[in-house]
Amino acid sequence: MERAIVKVTGQRVRVTGSGRTDAGVHALGQVGSCEIETKIEAAQLVRALNANLPPAIRVLDVVEAPAGFHALRDAKGKTYRYRIQQGRVADPFARAWTWFIPGELNVAAMRQAAEYLVGQFDFASFQSAGSPRASTVRHVRRLQVAEMAGPLGETIELEIEANGFLYNMVRNIVGSLVEVGRKKVPPEWVIEVREARDRRAAGPTAPPQGLVLVSVAYDSF
Amino acid sequence: MERAIVKVTGQRVRVTGSGRTDAGVHALGQVGSCEIETKIEAAQLVRALNANLPPAIRVLDVVEAPAGFHALRDAKGKTYRYRIQQGRVADPFARAWTWFIPGELNVAAMRQAAEYLVGQFDFASFQSAGSPRASTVRHVRRLQVAEMAGPLGETIELEIEANGFLYNMVRNIVGSLVEVGRKKVPPEWVIEVREARDRRAAGPTAPPQGLVLVSVAYDSF
Repeated sequence: MERAIVKVTGQRVRVTGSGRTDAGVHALGQVGSCEIETKIEAAQLVRALNANLPPAIRVLDVVEAPAGFHALRDAKGKTYRYRIQQGRVADPFARAWTWFIPGELNVAAMRQAAEYLVGQFDFASFQSAGSPRASTVRHVRRLQVAEMAGPLGETIELEIEANGFLYNMVRNIVGSLVEVGRKKVPPEWVIEVREARDRRAAGPTAPPQGLVLVSVAYDSF
Repeated sequence: MERAIVKVTGQRVRVTGSGRTDAGVHALGQVGSCEIETKIEAAQLVRALNANLPPAIRVLDVVEAPAGFHALRDAKGKTYRYRIQQGRVADPFARAWTWFIPGELNVAAMRQAAEYLVGQFDFASFQSAGSPRASTVRHVRRLQVAEMAGPLGETIELEIEANGFLYNMVRNIVGSLVEVGRKKVPPEWVIEVREARDRRAAGPTAPPQGLVLVSVAYDSF
């Protein structure tokens, strides 16, 4: 992105993202901020940047932000989606953004377990080592588990919205809900995991490719 | 596929496909036939073959066919789909199976032009050089142009069903309908193209990645 900006505007800038996404994780609505002085108008910048970016990365919009705006510090919340494919055969067209779990997960049990994670809690049990935060308390505003028909079996979509996320928090929550879906543990087990405040209490980390950063929320936009 | 069959059944066989698809073209429902003597049951064969195939290729089903069945010779018809994305920005998640055409095509005009290609005609104008057939007469049973909302702009889906297709026929039809959609020519131009029986009369060949072989029809299944 920074290379494309230099090519288009001649300015060397640092782009601050709203956060990092791990290798294999996707983003539909990542937000980045930077300071550019240019007379090129927004729609023209979108076209010019996209012409200089690899096709896997697309600028959807360019907007002027209030002075001092910072995509990371000013983020008020984020929404992630995690996609699981069920069935006998993994869909080749979806494999880059789906976790294929053959057989049938108990979605009703997953949905019940998900409710125990909505609210303001210490999510330390769902934080992977490697990027510790000052506080492990987060407010999960929404955690929905939807089912829909897919070409080769049901698709389960988990959507989670919070004021912020710990390292690997979504993937660790999904991994734990899948343990419930596999009927290895009852939905109430998630309460124990949450209260343990210990990563070892939770389920395994779900693989990265199912995860998508959907959107980032700000006060100013 | 043949390597996977050897690994699973120990038998060296030739798999006959219902037809070839060019590089970049996809298939949701390709059909292949071969003779295997095995006591492994169908569901187990599906699992074992998939365990030995690259993840981009999946066996959806294995069924016993009547003696002498031949996936190419016995095909009674095929259905293809071609996908176009409209809008300002090409969707990175769809780029492997979509033709991105910025701006806005006139879908009503494309739909009208499509009607002139439904029926039994000599489709020589829509046959690329390289793989000539004895007869260039084909019966297009259905050619539908559907529009649907997509994340970054409208998706146009063309679905075409015929008793058989000439080399590059779908991509040449799509390329011609897009000329109509771009308002370079009126819908009736397609009639002239059809009647010319000359490849030079038609529009350019649409790129391969938008094309998907959806299904192959047989009498016996």
